[in-house]
Amino acid sequence: MAQKFAARVSIEQVEEGSELAPKFDADGLIPAVTTDFHTGELLMHGYMNAEALQKTIETGEAHYFSRSRQALWHKGATSGLVQKLKELMIDDDQDCVWLKVEVVGGASCHVGYRSCFYRRIPLGTSNEPPRLEFTETTKVFDPADVYGNAPNPTKL
Amino acid sequence: MAQKFAARVSIEQVEEGSELAPKFDADGLIPAVTTDFHTGELLMHGYMNAEALQKTIETGEAHYFSRSRQALWHKGATSGLVQKLKELMIDDDQDCVWLKVEVVGGASCHVGYRSCFYRRIPLGTSNEPPRLEFTETTKVFDPADVYGNAPNPTKL
Repeated sequence: MAQKFAARVSIEQVEEGSELAPKFDADGLIPAVTTDFHTGELLMHGYMNAEALQKTIETGEAHYFSRSRQALWHKGATSGLVQKLKELMIDDDQDCVWLKVEVVGGASCHVGYRSCFYRRIPLGTSNEPPRLEFTETTKVFDPADVYGNAPNPTKL
Repeated sequence: MAQKFAARVSIEQVEEGSELAPKFDADGLIPAVTTDFHTGELLMHGYMNAEALQKTIETGEAHYFSRSRQALWHKGATSGLVQKLKELMIDDDQDCVWLKVEVVGGASCHVGYRSCFYRRIPLGTSNEPPRLEFTETTKVFDPADVYGNAPNPTKL
């Protein structure tokens, strides 16, 4: 397998060039934004290390790096909710990738919702703390059925 | 102004509750994903500190924290390309926010393109390094006109 990533040598190369020269942060990670190819809905926000990005490119299925498990994460390997890439984009300074995917099974969120973003923050000033508004009310699956006793990835 | 953010006390509260209890990372930041309200296009990926999130909620205009300048960043203050919020969402574990915006002026990228994501990474295996494919070819504005001699935020 050829090396996929070029060294970052100039701003012009990174912003205006056609070499793939991603910037991984101090932890070796790049943020990954995943949307539904058909609806444009934001499904999740995760991270990739170099291996996850390379595997995503090679296989056309989303791979992330799980920060809670500190391991390569083939999305859907446990749940069956694989994300098939329709298009993979990179941003101007090549420190973020955008995955446009189709989701086998229709859900992307470990809580059971279609999207991880199922609550709205109300805007404006108020003397009261904001109350989040649910925009999804029905879960697509029951996490207990899919994940069993696997530890919840949410960290306080 | 009332305190906007609740303490994070349990996974159930964070995932299933209606309190806004965002998780800021070790640098005090939360990633922010910004899409065009009308087209669903991913415009940018940035970061907010607590002040930026609070100002975004209060004013209905996107505020970020600029990591390159280490300062609060009212998007559009220099360029005029203000992002007006139509909807603000938060994810399951409340460590990422999603801004759905209308952009005054139609561009969000400091390089001059409509979106920061103007290049596609080809998928599949190959013995050659990947060549990025441009999906936008015409800049909406000339960065030199808008930003003058301000330093480029891209870091190698």
